[in-house]
Amino acid sequence: MTENQTSAFDVKTLSAEALAERLSRLHFADAVDVINDLDIVERVNVFKFLPIEYAIELFDKPELDEPGQILEMLPTERSVTILDGMSADQAADVFQEMEEATRAKLYPLLKPLTRAEMKKLSSYPDGSAGALMTTEFIAVPSTWSVRQTLDHIRDVERTRETVYASYVIDPETSVLIKAVSLRNLILANPDDTILNAATNGEPIKIGPLTDQEEVARLFRRHDLLSVPVVDETDHVIGIVTVDDVLDAMTEEMSEDAYKFGGMEALDKPYMDIGFFDMMKKRGGWLAVLFLGEMLTASAMQHFEVELEKAIVLTLFIPLIMSSGGNSGSQATSLIIRALALRELELRDWWKVALREIPAGVSLGAMLGLIGVIRIIVWQKTGIYDYGEHWVLVAITVGAALIGIVMFGCLTGSMLPFLLNRLGFDPASASAPFVATLVDVTGIVIYFSVAALILSGTLL
Amino acid sequence: MTENQTSAFDVKTLSAEALAERLSRLHFADAVDVINDLDIVERVNVFKFLPIEYAIELFDKPELDEPGQILEMLPTERSVTILDGMSADQAADVFQEMEEATRAKLYPLLKPLTRAEMKKLSSYPDGSAGALMTTEFIAVPSTWSVRQTLDHIRDVERTRETVYASYVIDPETSVLIKAVSLRNLILANPDDTILNAATNGEPIKIGPLTDQEEVARLFRRHDLLSVPVVDETDHVIGIVTVDDVLDAMTEEMSEDAYKFGGMEALDKPYMDIGFFDMMKKRGGWLAVLFLGEMLTASAMQHFEVELEKAIVLTLFIPLIMSSGGNSGSQATSLIIRALALRELELRDWWKVALREIPAGVSLGAMLGLIGVIRIIVWQKTGIYDYGEHWVLVAITVGAALIGIVMFGCLTGSMLPFLLNRLGFDPASASAPFVATLVDVTGIVIYFSVAALILSGTLL
Repeated sequence: MTENQTSAFDVKTLSAEALAERLSRLHFADAVDVINDLDIVERVNVFKFLPIEYAIELFDKPELDEPGQILEMLPTERSVTILDGMSADQAADVFQEMEEATRAKLYPLLKPLTRAEMKKLSSYPDGSAGALMTTEFIAVPSTWSVRQTLDHIRDVERTRETVYASYVIDPETSVLIKAVSLRNLILANPDDTILNAATNGEPIKIGPLTDQEEVARLFRRHDLLSVPVVDETDHVIGIVTVDDVLDAMTEEMSEDAYKFGGMEALDKPYMDIGFFDMMKKRGGWLAVLFLGEMLTASAMQHFEVELEKAIVLTLFIPLIMSSGGNSGSQATSLIIRALALRELELRDWWKVALREIPAGVSLGAMLGLIGVIRIIVWQKTGIYDYGEHWVLVAITVGAALIGIVMFGCLTGSMLPFLLNRLGFDPASASAPFVATLVDVTGIVIYFSVAALILSGTLL
Repeated sequence: MTENQTSAFDVKTLSAEALAERLSRLHFADAVDVINDLDIVERVNVFKFLPIEYAIELFDKPELDEPGQILEMLPTERSVTILDGMSADQAADVFQEMEEATRAKLYPLLKPLTRAEMKKLSSYPDGSAGALMTTEFIAVPSTWSVRQTLDHIRDVERTRETVYASYVIDPETSVLIKAVSLRNLILANPDDTILNAATNGEPIKIGPLTDQEEVARLFRRHDLLSVPVVDETDHVIGIVTVDDVLDAMTEEMSEDAYKFGGMEALDKPYMDIGFFDMMKKRGGWLAVLFLGEMLTASAMQHFEVELEKAIVLTLFIPLIMSSGGNSGSQATSLIIRALALRELELRDWWKVALREIPAGVSLGAMLGLIGVIRIIVWQKTGIYDYGEHWVLVAITVGAALIGIVMFGCLTGSMLPFLLNRLGFDPASASAPFVATLVDVTGIVIYFSVAALILSGTLL
């Protein structure tokens, strides 16, 4: 069943029971889409009739809308069964969303294990491995055989997340020793010991506070399907699985894009977010940038005498300033990615500076040349008259471009390092932020170069 | 072994043989790092001594530098064994990189199966599912039992990529019927038929030309570990696995970031790319943007009379123009992400326009208000004198900001739709591109508003 076909379901004419029956033959993601289109009463009715195992799987999908509200309206017993059956990470997320009163009612009814897992999982900060992980995993003592492990998996398997890998622990201390992939488990001789089926070397592992970008990098580097999260004493407290990493990366991609565009990250799809929420996410940064950009007016007021004498200089202000902003935004996007991919470390800032200065001078010289040619052509063909000192004006424009583009490259490339050093996300160095920084300085550079070249003639 | 410890390897003092022995105890990714730091002759020597199965695994990592050159310098027989043993997608990529002469020498020596797979894989365009897929997968007839399938997997298992899922095909027509995850295979009763162990409903599948962004979306939606690629007649021709999707997403993230920053995507890490390559990637777009931005000079020349009469207007040009660019870049980043995540379709453009116009007016009014307050405060406190018509100047600035920010939001949000409609990647709508578009129009709007409000007084 493809997504488009789901629309063939005429959900409104079916009874909740019939709908539940039909839904249970769909892929989970398609069923979630159908359910999300129902109103809340219909949704609750459907979940009353869905087979419980199937209902649990649907609640395990982060795409299900308002799971907390549905659970609040379902019969208490059914809600408790669903929460106990869900994978712990998702259950903890859903539980957070419910009303305080419902939580107080449901919490004592949950299994002690579910309660303990929820408590643990909700204690880690957003964006950390602890917040991504689930507490269900397979751990077996190193004395077991492959066959025992496989039998154990068949026994305890509760949710899809548990079987990506098994973890071998010391039978005495419970410390993590090895990881065994499901693949190796199947390929191994059932009578072999579990240690013989394990992967070479120390298992890859992370702490609960590891940043999700670092987690994603480890998954890519080692082609992992899951990674164990261990505490300081090397005891496994959970696992992060590849599907959660994919979701986290997608979220991270969006956040970085919004930040680079100069706004706060949205937490909802574009069409779902309220008008005033949207204004807040955009307006805040826009106002900050506007206040910063006001310094351009101050800078220009400072050069008011020059402006009055040489109106011709104002013609090139937007051109020159935007070139600084553009070269800065290029440099920023380069360095943000290089830092995110760990191609560069914080301490490499000076190597980057040593590259960006000649790069900026070369790019500025190229643009300067185009600018000078433009002035010559316009002047010689009579399209516009830049006055008797047009040659000096052309030289001013060319020289200012070299300085400003160089400054743009340098500022744009250093800003992500600086933000990183100050403990901020380097991705907060947005294109508009860099442009604003460069604009103000650009005006000062432009008029200083002009004063140098044109004093005694135009100025 | 963690990454930092790899530096403890004093690779220079070890013989290639001793090094090979040590390497084979590392995680593959760590071993690749150590090898990448060697010079080419040392690398070749190491690969002469590494156990062949381990060498094949290392060549399967896309992170290994210059695999083609290493294979060219290894004894022919060893190179052929490695190429035959590698997963087909990686082998095809590496083979592309070799010198024509070496390819001609090695190609006839490869197994016919390897040759056929390489030929097939190299025929799909970059960024398509066909280019991401590998041709090794497990397909079993629907008449088999679970036990037969597991035995078959143990028999044919060549590379790690094959076992994520098995595909059940019609014994007569070989058409894909069902998918069975490794997890379900293990949980099922070995004597059950394979069809009973399969996932509910039609298997999720894609065509070889499906875009990699769409592939990633399917993986996220259905929490897949692999997806079968089928031809028009529903015969499986390969599979895409989640590790390749993670790599593709990371590449896509970088490309989008570079594009949004206004430059061509880099194909190498920042510090590895040559100076002139870097100039080309940045200079091209910078020059195009510069040429576009030259229209601002033309626009200002057009308003030369107004400029001379009212120098005070020039003070606010950078402020007003950058506000248009900033609001445009916010809107663009919003819509690029919404399109990438399929929150919006092409046909939703008018809904977005209907949202962005009031959003732009509101944001513009906010900035306009700040601007007006600034002028009042500076005027009243005597910091700067905007002349006798300063009230009208303030009104001009405020009104122009409303118009320009609205125009910025509208242009920024419509540009990704337009690019998408014209067949380009919406992510090509870079922040500098939007800023340039808005700058030129911004000047026209500013001076038109000024002419309207100030004619008869300042103008």
